[in-house]
Amino acid sequence: MGKAKEQMALKVPKGTKDWAGRDMVLRNHIFATITRVFQRFGGVTLDTPTFELKEILTGKYGEDSKLIYDLADQGGELCALRYDLTVPFARWLAMNPAVSSIKRYQLAKVFRRDQPAMTKGRMREFYQCDFDIAGTFDPMLPDADIFKIITQVFDALGWNGRYTIKTNHRKILDGIFQVCGVPQDKLRTISSAVDKLDKSLWSEVKREMTEDKGLDAEIADRIGQYVTLKGQPLDLLQKLQADAQLSGNESAKAGLEDMSLLFRYLDIYSVLDKVSFDMSLARGLDYYTGVIYEVVTEGSAPQTSQGQAIQHRAKKESRKADDEDGSNDPNIGVGSIAAGGRYDELVKMFAPRSNMPCVGISFGIERIFSIIKSRDQESSTSRSNDVDVYVMALGGKDFDGGLKERMEVASRLRNAGINAEFMFKVKPKLLQQFKAAEQNNVPFALILGEDELKNGQCKIKELGLPEGHPEKDGVVVPLTDMEKEVKKRIDAANDLSNGVQKLTV
Amino acid sequence: MGKAKEQMALKVPKGTKDWAGRDMVLRNHIFATITRVFQRFGGVTLDTPTFELKEILTGKYGEDSKLIYDLADQGGELCALRYDLTVPFARWLAMNPAVSSIKRYQLAKVFRRDQPAMTKGRMREFYQCDFDIAGTFDPMLPDADIFKIITQVFDALGWNGRYTIKTNHRKILDGIFQVCGVPQDKLRTISSAVDKLDKSLWSEVKREMTEDKGLDAEIADRIGQYVTLKGQPLDLLQKLQADAQLSGNESAKAGLEDMSLLFRYLDIYSVLDKVSFDMSLARGLDYYTGVIYEVVTEGSAPQTSQGQAIQHRAKKESRKADDEDGSNDPNIGVGSIAAGGRYDELVKMFAPRSNMPCVGISFGIERIFSIIKSRDQESSTSRSNDVDVYVMALGGKDFDGGLKERMEVASRLRNAGINAEFMFKVKPKLLQQFKAAEQNNVPFALILGEDELKNGQCKIKELGLPEGHPEKDGVVVPLTDMEKEVKKRIDAANDLSNGVQKLTV
Repeated sequence: MGKAKEQMALKVPKGTKDWAGRDMVLRNHIFATITRVFQRFGGVTLDTPTFELKEILTGKYGEDSKLIYDLADQGGELCALRYDLTVPFARWLAMNPAVSSIKRYQLAKVFRRDQPAMTKGRMREFYQCDFDIAGTFDPMLPDADIFKIITQVFDALGWNGRYTIKTNHRKILDGIFQVCGVPQDKLRTISSAVDKLDKSLWSEVKREMTEDKGLDAEIADRIGQYVTLKGQPLDLLQKLQADAQLSGNESAKAGLEDMSLLFRYLDIYSVLDKVSFDMSLARGLDYYTGVIYEVVTEGSAPQTSQGQAIQHRAKKESRKADDEDGSNDPNIGVGSIAAGGRYDELVKMFAPRSNMPCVGISFGIERIFSIIKSRDQESSTSRSNDVDVYVMALGGKDFDGGLKERMEVASRLRNAGINAEFMFKVKPKLLQQFKAAEQNNVPFALILGEDELKNGQCKIKELGLPEGHPEKDGVVVPLTDMEKEVKKRIDAANDLSNGVQKLTV
Repeated sequence: MGKAKEQMALKVPKGTKDWAGRDMVLRNHIFATITRVFQRFGGVTLDTPTFELKEILTGKYGEDSKLIYDLADQGGELCALRYDLTVPFARWLAMNPAVSSIKRYQLAKVFRRDQPAMTKGRMREFYQCDFDIAGTFDPMLPDADIFKIITQVFDALGWNGRYTIKTNHRKILDGIFQVCGVPQDKLRTISSAVDKLDKSLWSEVKREMTEDKGLDAEIADRIGQYVTLKGQPLDLLQKLQADAQLSGNESAKAGLEDMSLLFRYLDIYSVLDKVSFDMSLARGLDYYTGVIYEVVTEGSAPQTSQGQAIQHRAKKESRKADDEDGSNDPNIGVGSIAAGGRYDELVKMFAPRSNMPCVGISFGIERIFSIIKSRDQESSTSRSNDVDVYVMALGGKDFDGGLKERMEVASRLRNAGINAEFMFKVKPKLLQQFKAAEQNNVPFALILGEDELKNGQCKIKELGLPEGHPEKDGVVVPLTDMEKEVKKRIDAANDLSNGVQKLTV
């Protein structure tokens, strides 16, 4: 914080934060990992304006609309900051009817005037990373790709075996409610009660259904028989298909057929073992029309052995928790870390005669960030910049500091595409230079010694090598080969620390 | 545009646009190029909130403050969208006094409620790419790095020899005004008149100085002797140093000493030939305190042989033209494509007792984009996604479409980090599949033929090879080696089209 006497409040707006240093490096690595996977699946990126016409956002978010940030009326159009990336995408599709299909991704900030909870990391400005497939295709093929994307992202993050994709289908849920006898006008409100099953016991959800929402206790009990079911996809699918009442319902039948096809494709993709078919998953947003899914990880939603979720936080918070980050306590549940589903009717809200079925996934970066950070907190190899070589000089007491030589060598390294730095000081001390390199964990020093320079040589020293290592004291190489020799060592060091390692630097 | 009958206006807010397709690919390549250079110089990135407290921005932009976007007062703090990245950076430095020095870069959108001119590409939402060095160092060393960054960026963009860095020094300008006899209270207004010399003749600037601003004609004439000077840095420097009156002025002397040191460093960096020492450069912003610079390219500010600039557009427009893009007419001047300077006093506005000298550069992405786009308009190799391989199948009339095999192969390719796609259709026709690949200029097809599959083989076909090429009809490889064989060919193709080529895909 700035000195106390300034008249001006030196702070960022409530619910926002500056990202800098190692946090920023880590977050950028997460972005890069996700982007690589998105591109691997043919994704193209789209960039929509940070604010939209107010009326584009109106009527899309239900009661959460009060959380939308409006721009001041300074004359002209009324605008508001975007609340998510899905509605702008649907608006873009409606405006571009020539686009018959697209796989689009977008990593961008969204804004929600929520009550911030900084200790829990609930933010008013936060990132969403979305991949969506729009267009008419053979059934469940794009949906299967979304599941494969989810697994490739978390595998690339090194989370193999540490996450579960919970999935369900809106049509199956609707079918269940119908066969259980829920009146048509209570479908949505009962669905949102079911959605609380991941944190509340059935008895509490039943109480809400009957006491708060006026459902017959008998109907509620019938629902309870279904929505507490979860398990291995093919097993539960078989069980539901064998249920004559359910498979006699048109909506449930259509949903079960979708899931049967989906699970077949996920088997081909070798990702079925990451999936839990979970009848309690309902998802909050109204616009989903087909398969829905939510990714949970260790600590984000632990389950009891009865298949009931332990209450970690109110679902209400959890739903708003897209904007969370920063908690370093791995025991705090952070809600789902990615979620999405099929929404075949949203584009129609902008262009009623269009037919543009969509399916997509949104990764919650702040949550993923906070989990990785808490897991890798002790990592001592963290670098805060990407400098590979620190160019330094040393010599006797009449030595001029070698500034010209340091500049020339840094320039040659940079021309060769190598990230290099030197001290902005005409005559720096050797110790200062080593300290500066160590501060950022720069892996290599290129030392221009007065004596070596006379022989047209320099020394490359990998910093932090253990005692006894053959190159502990550095290697003398000809100045002419310097770029090649440095590159060779950087590449070798990178090969050693590839994959997960790279991500957790 | 959407169908006419919708009640809702299907559009983006005035002065904003959606970025998609090839434009987006090109813009991302520019971002990536600039980021790589920034990192090569030890830059670390900072992400500040999209909006700031209103009072943080107040009093920083002079009369342009009226262009700031305010957020609506929905209770709580009054906020406004950021107008540039420099003031938020200075605010961050003031809030983080423990940071004694930093090289920071930021690529982010800024917002100006300017009168948009879409045909000229003047936008209300646009990107700035800034690199700044904050901290106390030996003189002119960080400044020299900024110049080197400029040349590395434009060289990496393939603009070698097509750009000029115009430079000047605020203290020299102040010295000139002093020795010419400009009254102290007229310094800034005379300076902004001088700034118009890149598009107006001296006679017009003189008229403004004398008639509009009440300067003695004699003083104006004396100024004219100086500010129309420009040329090779060392030549002009020598000439100015030989001017007894000027080098007798304290301010000018300090500025000339800075420039002398700077040019020495730029010589070591081999970039002096890109620089024009130009006494007419004054820069609009008040906060510059030392060296200033502006990058121009072909068509952005052509000069007459008299060293006077041809009038392409009013300077007033040009100064606001940070937000320009999209013009495909290479003859339309787009103003400077990058600009910056030293501002040693800005952080003090937030933390009066801090001493945090800064120097920086801001690249105008929309302008650079529009110039590259107009130059490479005819490039036929444009790809709109990054897919390297399109996986397709073919067989006889009883062939099942090979969906399972396509999914398995695509999955294996993606697991190997290769960008792959296949058609979301159970039984696609071969021609459809080739068409889909061609639409996005996907370079390779991996063809799963019924016959080859039986032998455990597949065919890799580079698309668009000329007749007579030995691999024109594709190469049959064992399925087990598929990833390796594909990767080999992608790498070879990338090697062929590296550097500039890659950028102009």
